Amino acid sequence: MERVYNFAAGPAVLPLEVLNRIRKDIPVFQDTGMSVMEMSHRSKAFEEIIGEAERLFRRLLGVPDDYHVLFMQGGATLQFSMVPLNLMRRSKKADYVVTGLFARKAAQEAGKFGSVNVAASSEDRGFARIPDLSAAAFSSDADYVHITTNNTVYGTRFTSFPETGAPLAADMSSNILSEPVDVSRFGLIYAGAQKNIGPSGLCMAAVRKDLVGFAPADAPVMLDYRTYADHASLYNTPPTFAVYAAKLVFEWIEGKGGVAGMEKLNREKAAILYDLLDDSSLFKGVADREFRSLMNVTFTLPNEELTAEFLSEASAAGFVNLKGHRAVGGVRASLYNAMPVEGAAALADFMKRFEAARRRR
Amino acid sequence: MERVYNFAAGPAVLPLEVLNRIRKDIPVFQDTGMSVMEMSHRSKAFEEIIGEAERLFRRLLGVPDDYHVLFMQGGATLQFSMVPLNLMRRSKKADYVVTGLFARKAAQEAGKFGSVNVAASSEDRGFARIPDLSAAAFSSDADYVHITTNNTVYGTRFTSFPETGAPLAADMSSNILSEPVDVSRFGLIYAGAQKNIGPSGLCMAAVRKDLVGFAPADAPVMLDYRTYADHASLYNTPPTFAVYAAKLVFEWIEGKGGVAGMEKLNREKAAILYDLLDDSSLFKGVADREFRSLMNVTFTLPNEELTAEFLSEASAAGFVNLKGHRAVGGVRASLYNAMPVEGAAALADFMKRFEAARRRR
Repeated sequence: MERVYNFAAGPAVLPLEVLNRIRKDIPVFQDTGMSVMEMSHRSKAFEEIIGEAERLFRRLLGVPDDYHVLFMQGGATLQFSMVPLNLMRRSKKADYVVTGLFARKAAQEAGKFGSVNVAASSEDRGFARIPDLSAAAFSSDADYVHITTNNTVYGTRFTSFPETGAPLAADMSSNILSEPVDVSRFGLIYAGAQKNIGPSGLCMAAVRKDLVGFAPADAPVMLDYRTYADHASLYNTPPTFAVYAAKLVFEWIEGKGGVAGMEKLNREKAAILYDLLDDSSLFKGVADREFRSLMNVTFTLPNEELTAEFLSEASAAGFVNLKGHRAVGGVRASLYNAMPVEGAAALADFMKRFEAARRRR
Repeated sequence: MERVYNFAAGPAVLPLEVLNRIRKDIPVFQDTGMSVMEMSHRSKAFEEIIGEAERLFRRLLGVPDDYHVLFMQGGATLQFSMVPLNLMRRSKKADYVVTGLFARKAAQEAGKFGSVNVAASSEDRGFARIPDLSAAAFSSDADYVHITTNNTVYGTRFTSFPETGAPLAADMSSNILSEPVDVSRFGLIYAGAQKNIGPSGLCMAAVRKDLVGFAPADAPVMLDYRTYADHASLYNTPPTFAVYAAKLVFEWIEGKGGVAGMEKLNREKAAILYDLLDDSSLFKGVADREFRSLMNVTFTLPNEELTAEFLSEASAAGFVNLKGHRAVGGVRASLYNAMPVEGAAALADFMKRFEAARRRR
C-alpha cells in the first residue's frame, strides 16, 4: 500500500524521514537493548531524548532563557483550563480574542476560573477574518490577553500581534514552528503536538518564568505549571514516545533550514492553492485574503452535491481527509510542515482537472 | 544490538510481538495510506481501533455494562485529582488506605478537594505489608474508599479487598490485567498505561455509570469523567498511538489466555524469584510474604557496596533497570505481563551465580 497525501487537520501527516527513523528504532533504540516506548523516563537514554527535544525546540523557536519549556499532556483543551488557573494571578480577569471555535472554547473554559472579557471577536463575520485589534476593548487590569494564532476550522491566522499591557498568551497549536515568531512578545505560548510537532498526547509550552508559581494552592498538581517547571517535566511519567517523536521532528525541521525554511515552503504550498482559488470560478476561498492561514486552506464549492463529488473523487485519487469542519462545510486542505510541496501541487492539479471536467459538461 | 531483559518499573517492557506489529504498521497501516500516528481521531480507521481497544479491555477484565470505559491522559497522578473532584459528591469526605508512596500522594492530593481520612496505613511497618483492613477506620459517610492494589515501590499487593459501604476506588496502575479481578466490587478502577497496558501517555479507567456527572460545574473540562463518557473519549484528541498500542497489547493478552493466562505466567515468574529469595542468605525480600506483589519483586543485599556490584554486573549481563526505588534502596525486579518467564528464570540463574561467587570468596 502506497502512502496517500493526508490533508487532515490533526493528527496530521508526519515527515516520512521521521517515520522511517521511528521504524528503525523498533524494537531496539541505539545501544539500549529496548525500544523508546519501554524506557524508564528516569533513564539516562530518555533524559537525553527529552533534553535534546527541549534544546531543539528552544533553538528552532528562539525561546529566550527566561522562559521554561514544558512537556505536558491533555492537549490544548487542558491548557484552556491551565492558562486561567495559572495566569489569573491578580485581578482574576482576562481578555480573550475570539477568532474561531477553539478560541471561543478557550474563553468559555476560562470563565470557570475568573472574569472573561471578549476584547474582540470576528464571530459576526463568520470568523472569516481576524478582528481589528487596534479597536479591541482590552481591559486595563487584565491578568493576560489570550489569542489563537491560527484558526484551523476557518483557515485564518494572525498576521501581526496586538500590543497589550498584559502578558499575551497564545494557543499556537495549529501553526507553531510554521513561521518565525518573536517568543519574547508572549508571556505564554502553547501547542498540542498533533499538527506540527508529532503524535497526539503531547502538549508543549514556553512560559515566561516570572509568570509561574501563581496557581492556587488547591490547584490539581498536574494543572500547575510549577509542577512541570520544577521537575523538568518529569514529575510523573511524560508521554515518552511522543517526546521522542517530537525530537525527531525538530531535527527534521532543523535539517530543512529551521523555522525560516519551513515558512518558505509553507508560503510556497499555500500560494499554490490560494492562487488557484483566486483564479477559479468553481472553488471559493472561505477566509478573507489578508488573514489567510498558511496551514489550513478552506474553500467551498457551489453546492453540497459538488462538494461530495469532489471529496469522493479526491479521496479515490489519493488526496484524503479534505472534508471541511462541520461548522464551515466545504473543503479544508491542511498543509502542515510535513506536507511536501508536491502534495499541494498535486492537489492543485487535481482541482484544476476537476474544474475543467465540470466546465466541459 | 540484541534486546536486554528490562526490569523497569514503568515505562516497562512490551511484548516483542506487539513491537514487531507496530513496526510493520509504519509508515502505512493496513489500507489507510498512513501510519496510525497520522490518522485523524475522527477517522473511521481510528474509531475502529479505539472501539476494539474498549471491547478487548471490557472482555479481558470483565467490565460490566453499567461501567464506562474511559481513555484519558495525565497518568495516575492526574487521577489523584480527578477521583476526588468527581467522586466527592455528597459529604466531600473520602477514606484512603495508605500502602505506599503513590497511595500517600493520592491521599495528599485528595485533601485539596475535601476531607481525607487515612482509614489505615502501613507506613509504620515501612510499607512492607497491607494493613489489617478489618480494623480499618472507615468513615460512615465517606463518598468513597481509595486503595492502591499494587505498590510498585515496596512490592506489595492487596490479596483481598475490603468490604466497604462507600464505593471502592482503586489505583491499579501497576497490576491491572495481571490477575482476574471482580470489577463489580469497585466503583472506579484506573491505571496509567505504562506498566501493563502500553506506552506512557494513556490512562484508562472503568467507572460505574451512576458515579459520573457529579463533578462541580467549574471543574476543568478535561478533569470531568462526564466529558469522556459523553464523547466516547473523543471530546478532544486522545493519545491515538498509545491507544493503538494498547489495543495490540490487549490482543496479545487475549492470545495468551486472557487475564487468567497472565496470572498463571505471573505466578510462575514471581515464584521463581521469591523461592530464590527464601533460600538465599545473600538476598532478602522486602515485602511480607503474604502481601508479596506478583509484579514488583523487591529485595536487598547486605550493604550498598554489594548492591552496587550486583546492579553493575547484572546490567553488564543484560538484566537492566533493576535498581530499587530510592525510598527503599536495594533491588527491584518488575515482572509485568510482557516479561517472559525466561527473563525471570535467567535473572534467577544470574542471582544464584552471583551469590555462589560471593560465597567462594
